[in-house]
Amino acid sequence: MIPRYSRPEMAAIWSPENRFRIWFEIEALAAEAMAELGTIPASAARAIREGGAPRVAAMSQADLDRIDAIERETRHDVIAFLTWLGEGIGDDARFMHQGMTSSDVLDTCLAVQMTQAADLLIGGVDALLEALRARAIEHKHTPTIGRSHGIHAEPTSFGLKLLGHWAEFRRNRDRLLAARREVATCAISGPVGTFASVDPRVEAHVARKLGLAVEPVSTQVIPRDRHAAFFAALGVVASGIERLATEVRHLQRSEVREAEEYFHPGQKGSSAMPHKRNPVLSENLTGLARIVRGYVVPAMENVALWHERDISHSSVERMIGPDATVTLDFALHRAAGMMAKLTVYPKRMQANLESLGGVVHSQKVLLALTQAGMSRESAYAAVQRAAMATWNALGTPEARDFATNLLADADVAARLDAEALRVAMDPARDFGQVEAIFARVLAEA
Amino acid sequence: MIPRYSRPEMAAIWSPENRFRIWFEIEALAAEAMAELGTIPASAARAIREGGAPRVAAMSQADLDRIDAIERETRHDVIAFLTWLGEGIGDDARFMHQGMTSSDVLDTCLAVQMTQAADLLIGGVDALLEALRARAIEHKHTPTIGRSHGIHAEPTSFGLKLLGHWAEFRRNRDRLLAARREVATCAISGPVGTFASVDPRVEAHVARKLGLAVEPVSTQVIPRDRHAAFFAALGVVASGIERLATEVRHLQRSEVREAEEYFHPGQKGSSAMPHKRNPVLSENLTGLARIVRGYVVPAMENVALWHERDISHSSVERMIGPDATVTLDFALHRAAGMMAKLTVYPKRMQANLESLGGVVHSQKVLLALTQAGMSRESAYAAVQRAAMATWNALGTPEARDFATNLLADADVAARLDAEALRVAMDPARDFGQVEAIFARVLAEA
Amino acid sequence: MIPRYSRPEMAAIWSPENRFRIWFEIEALAAEAMAELGTIPASAARAIREGGAPRVAAMSQADLDRIDAIERETRHDVIAFLTWLGEGIGDDARFMHQGMTSSDVLDTCLAVQMTQAADLLIGGVDALLEALRARAIEHKHTPTIGRSHGIHAEPTSFGLKLLGHWAEFRRNRDRLLAARREVATCAISGPVGTFASVDPRVEAHVARKLGLAVEPVSTQVIPRDRHAAFFAALGVVASGIERLATEVRHLQRSEVREAEEYFHPGQKGSSAMPHKRNPVLSENLTGLARIVRGYVVPAMENVALWHERDISHSSVERMIGPDATVTLDFALHRAAGMMAKLTVYPKRMQANLESLGGVVHSQKVLLALTQAGMSRESAYAAVQRAAMATWNALGTPEARDFATNLLADADVAARLDAEALRVAMDPARDFGQVEAIFARVLAEA
Amino acid sequence: MIPRYSRPEMAAIWSPENRFRIWFEIEALAAEAMAELGTIPASAARAIREGGAPRVAAMSQADLDRIDAIERETRHDVIAFLTWLGEGIGDDARFMHQGMTSSDVLDTCLAVQMTQAADLLIGGVDALLEALRARAIEHKHTPTIGRSHGIHAEPTSFGLKLLGHWAEFRRNRDRLLAARREVATCAISGPVGTFASVDPRVEAHVARKLGLAVEPVSTQVIPRDRHAAFFAALGVVASGIERLATEVRHLQRSEVREAEEYFHPGQKGSSAMPHKRNPVLSENLTGLARIVRGYVVPAMENVALWHERDISHSSVERMIGPDATVTLDFALHRAAGMMAKLTVYPKRMQANLESLGGVVHSQKVLLALTQAGMSRESAYAAVQRAAMATWNALGTPEARDFATNLLADADVAARLDAEALRVAMDPARDFGQVEAIFARVLAEA
Repeated sequence: MIPRYSRPEMAAIWSPENRFRIWFEIEALAAEAMAELGTIPASAARAIREGGAPRVAAMSQADLDRIDAIERETRHDVIAFLTWLGEGIGDDARFMHQGMTSSDVLDTCLAVQMTQAADLLIGGVDALLEALRARAIEHKHTPTIGRSHGIHAEPTSFGLKLLGHWAEFRRNRDRLLAARREVATCAISGPVGTFASVDPRVEAHVARKLGLAVEPVSTQVIPRDRHAAFFAALGVVASGIERLATEVRHLQRSEVREAEEYFHPGQKGSSAMPHKRNPVLSENLTGLARIVRGYVVPAMENVALWHERDISHSSVERMIGPDATVTLDFALHRAAGMMAKLTVYPKRMQANLESLGGVVHSQKVLLALTQAGMSRESAYAAVQRAAMATWNALGTPEARDFATNLLADADVAARLDAEALRVAMDPARDFGQVEAIFARVLAEA
Repeated sequence: MIPRYSRPEMAAIWSPENRFRIWFEIEALAAEAMAELGTIPASAARAIREGGAPRVAAMSQADLDRIDAIERETRHDVIAFLTWLGEGIGDDARFMHQGMTSSDVLDTCLAVQMTQAADLLIGGVDALLEALRARAIEHKHTPTIGRSHGIHAEPTSFGLKLLGHWAEFRRNRDRLLAARREVATCAISGPVGTFASVDPRVEAHVARKLGLAVEPVSTQVIPRDRHAAFFAALGVVASGIERLATEVRHLQRSEVREAEEYFHPGQKGSSAMPHKRNPVLSENLTGLARIVRGYVVPAMENVALWHERDISHSSVERMIGPDATVTLDFALHRAAGMMAKLTVYPKRMQANLESLGGVVHSQKVLLALTQAGMSRESAYAAVQRAAMATWNALGTPEARDFATNLLADADVAARLDAEALRVAMDPARDFGQVEAIFARVLAEA
Repeated sequence: MIPRYSRPEMAAIWSPENRFRIWFEIEALAAEAMAELGTIPASAARAIREGGAPRVAAMSQADLDRIDAIERETRHDVIAFLTWLGEGIGDDARFMHQGMTSSDVLDTCLAVQMTQAADLLIGGVDALLEALRARAIEHKHTPTIGRSHGIHAEPTSFGLKLLGHWAEFRRNRDRLLAARREVATCAISGPVGTFASVDPRVEAHVARKLGLAVEPVSTQVIPRDRHAAFFAALGVVASGIERLATEVRHLQRSEVREAEEYFHPGQKGSSAMPHKRNPVLSENLTGLARIVRGYVVPAMENVALWHERDISHSSVERMIGPDATVTLDFALHRAAGMMAKLTVYPKRMQANLESLGGVVHSQKVLLALTQAGMSRESAYAAVQRAAMATWNALGTPEARDFATNLLADADVAARLDAEALRVAMDPARDFGQVEAIFARVLAEA
Repeated sequence: MIPRYSRPEMAAIWSPENRFRIWFEIEALAAEAMAELGTIPASAARAIREGGAPRVAAMSQADLDRIDAIERETRHDVIAFLTWLGEGIGDDARFMHQGMTSSDVLDTCLAVQMTQAADLLIGGVDALLEALRARAIEHKHTPTIGRSHGIHAEPTSFGLKLLGHWAEFRRNRDRLLAARREVATCAISGPVGTFASVDPRVEAHVARKLGLAVEPVSTQVIPRDRHAAFFAALGVVASGIERLATEVRHLQRSEVREAEEYFHPGQKGSSAMPHKRNPVLSENLTGLARIVRGYVVPAMENVALWHERDISHSSVERMIGPDATVTLDFALHRAAGMMAKLTVYPKRMQANLESLGGVVHSQKVLLALTQAGMSRESAYAAVQRAAMATWNALGTPEARDFATNLLADADVAARLDAEALRVAMDPARDFGQVEAIFARVLAEA
């Protein structure tokens, strides 16, 4: 998490102020539940709420420093906070945290932060979905060459390409929703999860108020398979960003030039070469995806805590909690902006589509020949011959287009005349199902 | 995937025979749909089914060798298979695969294999769930010490520990079901996903017959975010196995001896040291978890294929498809067997629980003191003093138990007498909610 | 490790036969050292060598099955082997393995296998180096456009590009040599590394005979940081293969067409599209690189064994030992073949180089202008203006080349006339240092 | 990189001030070399040095903000810095950066930062080595039980255990030195590495002055295999820290209690349980190791840049450059402090060693029996029988020690009497080679 790749909204979730705000809320809610149950005096719960709320709301750097100072002595972060908080509550502070353990506070707080983060991430996916949808519809009928292995295959529409990315992010949205559910649980069950000194109704109350489910069986901590699943989902989403970014990088490369990231007035592409306009956003997104993926395995290694818990997961989460969510959030918004402002060059798409002399229609010719009675093997051989002849002469004086080469082939000519060939190669067939695909995909949303 | 860590059922899914059987089924179903649509003659579809089915059913090593030989010439696996298959069909073979591309067959086949694999994995989880459930109920009231940081914390029940693992694998079951849904799609949409030469109704027919959903928008391939999510789920499940294995390893270590993997008659633990009985199953599971996790990032790197596809994902999937599912399947069954046969030593659990002179009840004393009016800080200090005195004298002639040390402390004695202390430290409180937790957890199933 | 991506030489290293051969050699050498020291009778050492050697040399499938059967009973692989071996030695067999532990045999054997594997890998790198070197020299003066961000930057030579890959694999060779040294150690130090029942001179003897160093301090095992470093080196080498493969994939894409993988007579690029010639080797290599990288983190997780050892590393190594080395070995040889046979199109390189109207010389014009007295900022702005005008009109009737646009700019024209511009843009300057770079790079070899 | 896990010395390396200081030095040195070569006026080089040096030395937050503002407009970090720098130099600023490209500055700067970081890491390893060495020598003759699989194996010395870690970090030191060499290169070769507009002697001069080697063949960038190897080495070192941390965690667990992290006066182990003293440093180190390992694969993915470079590596390095080095640096120093202050309990070690009734001497008895003429199989069976009888009765009224059980076995008694058994089990044999091992290991340093 570095400012260059952070949006303030997401960074704020991981600020000490937000964390302490949530800690206080958990302690205050727990106290209120205990008061209701008669475990502590009602007046104590009120004192905690009334003494603590303004103290937390008005937190200054001096307060953060004070908490740090206490932590340096006690070497315990929750005790440090409770001590500082108690200074504003007085004698009734002793009724806070009764029968609870630090992890009750820490893990429930992390659940709140991760759901807050998930909500922002889903918002980022929505922004990207909207950009992809708009551009997909805009270019629903923009012809472009489809490529497999980087080699021209058959025509498709640029909108259809974007629709595929839209559908992927629609799935990514579902994955983030599932990931949010994974981590949205509350545990206030005491040092080893037995509720030895705290009533399960306290947990139920805090969970309900915070919008979390109750963790059915916790140890000292909420089990880390939940967090592992969360970060794994982030890795999948990041990989989808990389796919989209890779597409843009390819489209912008000098020999393709079918699309281009928006180039700002005043922008300089290179310190040395003034002619440069580089796809720096998409390249950046490619790198950010690598980073987010790098957090997946550490999160999975966190699952196997010793017995009822060890604290090895904590340092990992202190780093990757913010790093993964902030970086992915930034990437989603960068991707959304990139796609919304992408400059598209339909003429260049058409020119590229036509640049190989028509060999990209080879499958349709192959089918016409087999339907005209040729064996699959013979038809394949004839079409391959004509295609290779066309391809190999590209850019030379001997260049002839695919149709010409086909008709010059006796085997082909015996089955198809020029008109039949024209019909077989009709590009309209490539686009006949585009509307139907759009309909079935967008219907899902 | 090595025989040592494979079960035949799972390995069979990845055999050439199973793959070719599925390939044939896809081609035959597609031909039948095309015949229904009038694209190819009905007699051709029949010929394909009738000529191909016995050929595939009776596949021998000689057939596999023949297909390999054709592939060596054409350098194309699907063409090699179709050529071999066509040899048993005759002239109508030219109507096979019309308008389709290899990936239509390959990716739909992979979807079938992955759902088959998912079903076996879910079966493995079920076996493990059953073992965990039975042992959890068996030991619902077996007291044992709960540990955080490897240090005795408070008592819990051994059944409750196992119940936590049960709940984790219940979640893992849901994750595998979700992973199965992710990959259970069929695409027969042609070289770039436009249905240029194949009717979408062919895809719909094949999908329905194979129990798959239709991929809403494919390129040449089914998008790889689905597979990435699948392998990520396997990584989470594997990490859960590691957590369980780590627990067993700890319980068996010589100083703990609370449980032990079953040791077979005739088994030798060490070539050098005849006294050894080692937790080799759980250690093995720990390693297997590492391996399965190692496949997650490659699967995520597979997402960003170039344009409508490149084939870089293929070699990865040829290896990790079998490796990840076979290894995890083996691990699940090994874990289930290990847990079913685990030898448990309740007496040793009780002895360990009592081995620290009672300091494990420190929280309950702390609460009693605060409820008796002490400030949290003073109470903490007094209890810590008595606990440290107890702990530090363990095993020495000066050893005294926690209660004695507490009552010797003037601050404590001023608030609690021996009887009050006995009540405060009553172990019954540690187990009061065990039934309730079991009820709420198992109710979910 | 699957046959499709295996060379027999490397696979053989990981065969049971090779493993048992090495195990026997270690036992026999150890016995000979013990006989020399008087620990066991000299006749026993002779009996072990003479009884065991032919037995191991003539190993059949029946022997492997017999060993498996014993292992199923004892659940111990080394004991199973020793029992089988002893059946050919007789009574003196009891002098084998005296004071040793299984890991003495297993870990030293693994060291031998890994050094054998490293030698093959280094041979693979050498094959690739030779192919790269030959093609680099062949194309030392073949002009091509250099690209950053996928955008044309400045001219370079194709040979220079290849030379960069050569230099990277030269470094990879050094890394493999270092990795080989890391793992080339022998430990015969007993169950916890104390030599309690075996003389250190036994270890020294076996090490010397096997060409290994003595592990200075072992526990029960050779420490796994060595193996982690080994697999990490493989991951770096694999990543270099991916870089080379990515280059080829880019050069072959339809809009670039500067180079192409060799396309065999009879080869079929696509089942559907007969015109296709796809860069399938380089795409395959890209996937193989992902796989090899996936083994790095599991190998690192293997380092933190418990106390004097646990056996969690073993299952990982049983899989990634063969998988990583076999896959990388295959990839290196595939890469070498691909580069040796790569079809290169210098005319197409030249055409691409010239396709942007000369803007690729923008830096040289920028320098000429600053040297003629313009500020860097003004010169940059003027050159950017002319370059963008050239670029944006590419392929339109308004297209004008870079020089024309520059001279039409008053600020530029005030400083440089047509001749000065021609001199500034002289492509000869791009190639002036190529010989010197070749000289300094190849001199290192 | 978060303050909680950072040392200021390492964090400072990655500060903007340090980066800009290095950028300036590269530009000034390059200008001086160009002046020497006559490419630019000597007065210009002097103006750059004299105008720039004080400006960089006195950099304030306002300067950083100004650079950021320029970058927001130009979207180019190096241009932003050069513009700001030029404001302090005047007209001669146009002679800066002549014929260079941003990467010449960025990559050479990164090389300087990474070598600075490597030096600090090596210092950290040295601190840890010193702590390990001192404690190893202190406990050279402290008996403790060696454990494999977590099960008591044979006695060893605590110093020997620590010596093994010392040796591992000695290797890690060498790996860091090699990693430092990997990245310590300078490239000033222009936009595609051809020296089209910059003389190679400029590169040579800058390299020499900065203590770097010349990169033999660069593209626009220094090849990323170097950086991948660097981060891989960090992953290996981190894994060694995890191994050490895991050892401490095990030694401190309540049933073992052989060693303990220093517990500060005033420290609180748990908010709920005042009796707790937890191994929080070693658990923390375990987590930090996971994080550092997580950066390895992203660094390897950075290798395969497109053509002469793309900028996808940059965002990765901006994050993992600081994160990996800062985290590992912190971990090394934390580990050093932990080991220096570790409380060791030799009495408890002795008690644990003796807790299994002597079965830990089983190998020595096995050897004595085979030397007395029993077959290996029979001896193994007899010793296993006696050991299991001993083990299974531990803690019961029927408990008898291993020697007693052995002598009660007729097969054993026929070969060994009580005195022979006492000699066979003599613990002195376990420690006979400790001095020799220390000597051979420490001799290497």
